[in-house]
Amino acid sequence: MDQWWINGAPGRSLDISDRGLAFGDGLFETIAVRGHQPRFLELHLARLLDGSARLRLPPVDAVALERDLRQRAASITDGVLKLIVTRGPGPRGYALPPRPVPTVAIGLESRAAEPWRPIRARWCETIAGRSPATAGLKTLGRLEQVLARAEWSDDSAEEGLMVGEDGYLVGGTASNVFLVMRGELVTPAITAAGIRGIMRRVIMREALAAELPVVESRVARGDVADAAEIFVSNALTGIRPVAALGAQAWAVGPVTRQLAARLAKAGVGECAGSC
Amino acid sequence: MDQWWINGAPGRSLDISDRGLAFGDGLFETIAVRGHQPRFLELHLARLLDGSARLRLPPVDAVALERDLRQRAASITDGVLKLIVTRGPGPRGYALPPRPVPTVAIGLESRAAEPWRPIRARWCETIAGRSPATAGLKTLGRLEQVLARAEWSDDSAEEGLMVGEDGYLVGGTASNVFLVMRGELVTPAITAAGIRGIMRRVIMREALAAELPVVESRVARGDVADAAEIFVSNALTGIRPVAALGAQAWAVGPVTRQLAARLAKAGVGECAGSC
Repeated sequence: MDQWWINGAPGRSLDISDRGLAFGDGLFETIAVRGHQPRFLELHLARLLDGSARLRLPPVDAVALERDLRQRAASITDGVLKLIVTRGPGPRGYALPPRPVPTVAIGLESRAAEPWRPIRARWCETIAGRSPATAGLKTLGRLEQVLARAEWSDDSAEEGLMVGEDGYLVGGTASNVFLVMRGELVTPAITAAGIRGIMRRVIMREALAAELPVVESRVARGDVADAAEIFVSNALTGIRPVAALGAQAWAVGPVTRQLAARLAKAGVGECAGSC
Repeated sequence: MDQWWINGAPGRSLDISDRGLAFGDGLFETIAVRGHQPRFLELHLARLLDGSARLRLPPVDAVALERDLRQRAASITDGVLKLIVTRGPGPRGYALPPRPVPTVAIGLESRAAEPWRPIRARWCETIAGRSPATAGLKTLGRLEQVLARAEWSDDSAEEGLMVGEDGYLVGGTASNVFLVMRGELVTPAITAAGIRGIMRRVIMREALAAELPVVESRVARGDVADAAEIFVSNALTGIRPVAALGAQAWAVGPVTRQLAARLAKAGVGECAGSC
């Protein structure tokens, strides 16, 4: 990131005793900035507050946080806001500090939005674990995604898909996955693994508005080959069709195009290239 | 901690872009200091290097690290060394930085060793998840333990026991668990959940030396009540007998006493009070 603010003050220095570092005791959000505005900010803040409640993090001033995020975003045209909220510094040991003071860090990076493009994906060997206590949340503990993404370093693929021990699809290393199967839009249910992505939520909303049946269910790795269409989603890129996965190839299908067109109208300009 | 050194220099300031904070992309060790010496340092360093290899962390200078840890420990009589090793600062995103420079943080705290004492334990509702990719390692992602330890804040219990989704025992929030069942020493196998504790390893070594059968296996929560003895282990406290778990009570048994006596001779002075 080009700039950071920690608890409101410009700087890059975190207290080494912060529980975000010690235990992954916190959450983060990665928010697209488009036209000086943080995109889907209300949804990001709602997920953060929901997660904070689930983790019993000390309360943050949501009004001030929203104001700060809008103010930071205003200084760039397009880019990324990264928000980290932790339980703050604390003594050694897992027990909650008696009076925790949260750490709120905001990072800002100017970067052009990436254009619409189909991608190549691959299967990862790193297993996506199960954590019912934290599933759905964007916690600071993302080591499995790091290990999965480290499985390749060339440009042979833009995303890797992860399955659980049971062989069922969980998601991409940095994305949610959608499939079109038997006329329905199918995405893995997030019960014990995976992140409830903001773009995932927007896509499901748009699909429902388009009267397209949406199913959250279990998808076996072996069934992915049967999908008529497949795409991944991420807050920074919107929809990206999967053009190839292993030896299999897909053309960009009509459902993907329909949803991308709707997203483009809903503010995800990256998807405009699909039309 | 009373003092910190980051990459060799005294200080408390971590770069906010450190991947240890961003993704839990690192490991830690908590090492007891007894009589100015870091206890079982070789075992801690071996676990750290094994974990670093599994996570493909950039290499640390193990000789310099051991020297530093011994030097820091020498300045206090009894206490705790905390060692954190991360993949270092990096740009946004899970992909490994091309030339990562690890962050090595050492914390030091002076504190008297805690005396031998039986403890009360409780069952935690927070489920211990499964992560085959990181199981056994003391990674920086410990949010489940934080949530489990947050289930109580009074002094009704000193430790909480966690089970997986399958109802099988994983361990304590900050300890491994041992049971004496049918004349054998039983501890949960660490395949997809739990940490391979250093004290766990020392206890297993001592049990084998005492010709006590040691079994790593699955232990259903419901079978714990059948244990003749039960104790927890931790690098900072050695063995602690569980005197009560829910409504059930145990006296300190002969196997626990035998192992505690062996540990006391092996340098775990906290266990001397068992005799």
